[in-house]
Amino acid sequence: MTEQLISVSSAQDGAWKTAVTQIIRAGERMDQRGWVPATAGNISVRLADGRIAVTRSGGHKGFLTPEGVIEIDLTGNPLLPGDRPSAETLLHCQIYAHFPHTGAVLHGHSIAATVLSMRTKERALYLADYEVLKVFEGQSTHATRVAVPIFSNDQDIARLARSVSLFLDEMKAGYIIQGHGVYVWGPDMDTALARLEGLEFLLACELERLKLSPSFQGM
Amino acid sequence: MTEQLISVSSAQDGAWKTAVTQIIRAGERMDQRGWVPATAGNISVRLADGRIAVTRSGGHKGFLTPEGVIEIDLTGNPLLPGDRPSAETLLHCQIYAHFPHTGAVLHGHSIAATVLSMRTKERALYLADYEVLKVFEGQSTHATRVAVPIFSNDQDIARLARSVSLFLDEMKAGYIIQGHGVYVWGPDMDTALARLEGLEFLLACELERLKLSPSFQGM
Amino acid sequence: MTEQLISVSSAQDGAWKTAVTQIIRAGERMDQRGWVPATAGNISVRLADGRIAVTRSGGHKGFLTPEGVIEIDLTGNPLLPGDRPSAETLLHCQIYAHFPHTGAVLHGHSIAATVLSMRTKERALYLADYEVLKVFEGQSTHATRVAVPIFSNDQDIARLARSVSLFLDEMKAGYIIQGHGVYVWGPDMDTALARLEGLEFLLACELERLKLSPSFQGM
Amino acid sequence: MTEQLISVSSAQDGAWKTAVTQIIRAGERMDQRGWVPATAGNISVRLADGRIAVTRSGGHKGFLTPEGVIEIDLTGNPLLPGDRPSAETLLHCQIYAHFPHTGAVLHGHSIAATVLSMRTKERALYLADYEVLKVFEGQSTHATRVAVPIFSNDQDIARLARSVSLFLDEMKAGYIIQGHGVYVWGPDMDTALARLEGLEFLLACELERLKLSPSFQGM
Repeated sequence: MTEQLISVSSAQDGAWKTAVTQIIRAGERMDQRGWVPATAGNISVRLADGRIAVTRSGGHKGFLTPEGVIEIDLTGNPLLPGDRPSAETLLHCQIYAHFPHTGAVLHGHSIAATVLSMRTKERALYLADYEVLKVFEGQSTHATRVAVPIFSNDQDIARLARSVSLFLDEMKAGYIIQGHGVYVWGPDMDTALARLEGLEFLLACELERLKLSPSFQGM
Repeated sequence: MTEQLISVSSAQDGAWKTAVTQIIRAGERMDQRGWVPATAGNISVRLADGRIAVTRSGGHKGFLTPEGVIEIDLTGNPLLPGDRPSAETLLHCQIYAHFPHTGAVLHGHSIAATVLSMRTKERALYLADYEVLKVFEGQSTHATRVAVPIFSNDQDIARLARSVSLFLDEMKAGYIIQGHGVYVWGPDMDTALARLEGLEFLLACELERLKLSPSFQGM
Repeated sequence: MTEQLISVSSAQDGAWKTAVTQIIRAGERMDQRGWVPATAGNISVRLADGRIAVTRSGGHKGFLTPEGVIEIDLTGNPLLPGDRPSAETLLHCQIYAHFPHTGAVLHGHSIAATVLSMRTKERALYLADYEVLKVFEGQSTHATRVAVPIFSNDQDIARLARSVSLFLDEMKAGYIIQGHGVYVWGPDMDTALARLEGLEFLLACELERLKLSPSFQGM
Repeated sequence: MTEQLISVSSAQDGAWKTAVTQIIRAGERMDQRGWVPATAGNISVRLADGRIAVTRSGGHKGFLTPEGVIEIDLTGNPLLPGDRPSAETLLHCQIYAHFPHTGAVLHGHSIAATVLSMRTKERALYLADYEVLKVFEGQSTHATRVAVPIFSNDQDIARLARSVSLFLDEMKAGYIIQGHGVYVWGPDMDTALARLEGLEFLLACELERLKLSPSFQGM
């Protein structure tokens, strides 16, 4: 049965192949920017039929192959019993469950996200007056302030997910796990990648501004 | 009629193809440097016959295809009614109208331009004593000072364009929109790209000098 | 006899070819990140049969060819008398001798490792609370502190190796030679590269945090 | 006669083709690192027969073609009357005249070289205790201090060359023109590129150390 599932997935399944290709290319893109160091980061796509494709645990996300992408259900369980999905799969599933139109979720680690989240006493980073804020859903002007919530890191992912769930409806640009990285999503991979790129650009700007003015950002 | 226009443009129009290729490659180049994050930035070329090719609104400028470039007239109206040109098209057209010899206009977002423009109380950034100043039109020495005007960001592009128009004749190296990015132009794409690269190199130097000396640049 | 050795190595030796390819690609990867400037850095692999492949002295590690990789024994002596292995070969051999399961050793130079090691008065850098710490052997949480020992640079490699040997068992993430670079290893090349990437990511974060707060890291 | 010269150069002249290829690849390499912004920088090679190949004035050194490289003599005069060599050609020729074994000269612009040279009150930058110092001629240890002289920028290249000539014999790692860039050379292109890379790596380290400690480097 397993072999039949594999052969359907790999030989005839155009939608699956497309999803896998998007994930591989997203990993390459994130790797070029240095956002998937070591084996960190994870990437997922929800197909039109509801299946979820996510990166397998442990591999380097910059050099994915089709074997590095597995199928899970909305509760995070792998389709094939031997598969181990990415450790943070529950965080991906939580977003898909909460937002019916989400088609892709990206998790990356950047120096800016790591450093800013470890420095601040605040419970969020605040991004204001940047043109690039317009890449986030519902934002049509630079003249606004967007909060990016910060959650303490936690190896108990289920517990971390419960903290995150309280704030999902407020999130305009994704969220940050302290000393860890960002979670960003969108209706499709292109939008999710654009939002990740936009968020990381703004975090890099914030880090530079903080270097110029230590009192910046209430830190 | 629309189909006829498309087939002329795409199949027989060597000048158009060249312009599109230049725009695609400029986007790739700007993306390598991180100057077109998310869907930000825009790029245009004026052909010898006066037609203007500009990037379509919303796409990622680092991964353009020929479909991502559309034709507009000097007032910013798209040739094909369904097309949406880049949001800041008026700023491109303004430059083409004001400077008859301009053949390409580039708009990018860099961390340096964003951070420096958000920090200064001055109405321009001043670049002095750099060898690279010689890349700008009319500059033949490093022993000079070039002003790069900063305009407040404004979602009303027509209003922003009116502010810009007052200073166009003075501009030696393009201009900056605060918290947004730079506008640079030249008689052809190669020159425009060289000037963009030169300006961004100098802004990066300025940002580093500011980190070493907070009183630098009157900030 | 020499010719026979070369022809066995190059024409029929699949395991050797694989090791050489891994070394070449590791060099390219390290070069993309700027970790093998000039002719600095060195890379080795221990094959299943115990042979050790190491980069030849003097070449640029970003542009290796098969001729740039030579065979040495566990004491650092080259198989072919005319070959000159990398100057720091003894440091590679020391790790292979001490850790029977090590399959690859990487040495790179980064700005962060160089600057941090030259600034601190401490005898190690301490990395704490980062998610990426989980890339190192035996680390399963971010909520920990890992020490990366710093050794004074020394052109007498044998003497440097003796200092290093005293601390090898304690090392969780490799070590740093002051003003020089890092040594990282793993059971295979992929793991070694992941650990190098993880360490350099964390050192880059530490450098940024130090810029924000000069009292950070006891420096 | 001109046509004959061109056809000998381009069709039958293997040594010339090799030199041109080295220059093109050096430009690409320098461009990847951001060291030839806009049309800045220049590159030359001296062939075994004494001919000198140098980049033509004005082109982007990251995208050279064979047409972008011309022949000059040791006094800087182009072989073909219509050719305009790089503006700083005399600085290349000076090095070839002074050092009979020099086979390649590189001039690039980096943020670190520009910023450090504009900040210091000293007449040189001093690099000490770095392992990478060993890439420079005659250096066999990190435990040393190498001076990199800084010359004020000057559009009168002949005058600048006279200042440089007084110090050529002392130079261990090339020199810097203030607010402009570095000059580095070696017996062949690979060595020159390695020394350029080594110098720029060290200047980048110095800039980072300066950010951590404003009293560093006597600045």
